[in-house]
Amino acid sequence: MKEVMAVIRMNMINDTKKALSEAGFPSITCRKVYGRGKKKVNFALIEDLIDGLPVEEPAVIEAISENYRLIAKRLLTMIVEDSEVQKIVDIIIETNQTGNMGDGRIFVSNISDVIRIRTDEVGALAL
Amino acid sequence: MKEVMAVIRMNMINDTKKALSEAGFPSITCRKVYGRGKKKVNFALIEDLIDGLPVEEPAVIEAISENYRLIAKRLLTMIVEDSEVQKIVDIIIETNQTGNMGDGRIFVSNISDVIRIRTDEVGALAL
Amino acid sequence: MKEVMAVIRMNMINDTKKALSEAGFPSITCRKVYGRGKKKVNFALIEDLIDGLPVEEPAVIEAISENYRLIAKRLLTMIVEDSEVQKIVDIIIETNQTGNMGDGRIFVSNISDVIRIRTDEVGALAL
Repeated sequence: MKEVMAVIRMNMINDTKKALSEAGFPSITCRKVYGRGKKKVNFALIEDLIDGLPVEEPAVIEAISENYRLIAKRLLTMIVEDSEVQKIVDIIIETNQTGNMGDGRIFVSNISDVIRIRTDEVGALAL
Repeated sequence: MKEVMAVIRMNMINDTKKALSEAGFPSITCRKVYGRGKKKVNFALIEDLIDGLPVEEPAVIEAISENYRLIAKRLLTMIVEDSEVQKIVDIIIETNQTGNMGDGRIFVSNISDVIRIRTDEVGALAL
Repeated sequence: MKEVMAVIRMNMINDTKKALSEAGFPSITCRKVYGRGKKKVNFALIEDLIDGLPVEEPAVIEAISENYRLIAKRLLTMIVEDSEVQKIVDIIIETNQTGNMGDGRIFVSNISDVIRIRTDEVGALAL
């Protein structure tokens, strides 16, 4: 099994969840993260961040501090069978690729075991 | 070493921490995530979510948007020795198994290295 | 490729980001987590937590509940080439090592694949 993690724009989350769900992949975990890549920061996005969030929140002040600005992103996590990874990667790229900086990245790593708490099912049965 | 990640119900966090701590596993990291599995959504839980949280928060609006609803969950993460994984999985199942949908899942993956920042200790010494 | 995760003190995040960026590692993802290790809890830190955050927030009430107190931390995540791991670990230790409990820990795990959504680049090209 694999863990597929995708860091995407905040406003792309619903379209991405919809595309994945319609393709038969509804199981998803979603968190807010703050991040940056190697590229120059897009300050318009920062403006949106400041407009949209309570600026007195420590996480926000930290995120917008001079020189080391981070941008709010959504982190999607899915645990899937190896054979499903390529299809999921394709759907995420198709839904999120605008060609502009900040489209995000996808990370894939190995998961050794999965257990469904309700039924004690393990492995592929628990996905 | 292994990373044990458990996505559990929000109201099970204190019982789970207590059970793990009493069994000798106090080291734990905890975050709020939003997720869903393959099953039909339990709308009573969504009602609880709306009651308990500021609905104007973007994460909440996103979580309760039509058709692709996500449910607030707690994600526990523990880094432990390989020999401890089964005992921890058993404790989490024993504490969280109600038999109802939404009990959550446990994921296990490999960790190649651990370093304690205070002492430079590595590997099992840093756990 | 490797994922380097570091759980550090909340007030060390800007110094750490600065040190990593100046060493040529600007790509970083940052989240707030609540955690504890095996050591006795430092209650002064808990006091800071209560002062700094809205105590009516469920996550905070949970974090400060008796006996199983958790401490707010920052979790940094970086995806890098294998050859860069040691340098990054050294920078994080150098920046965060006070010698007091609570300095945090660093975890390293394998990443099998990375894809940049904007360009379809994979592997080291996507870092």
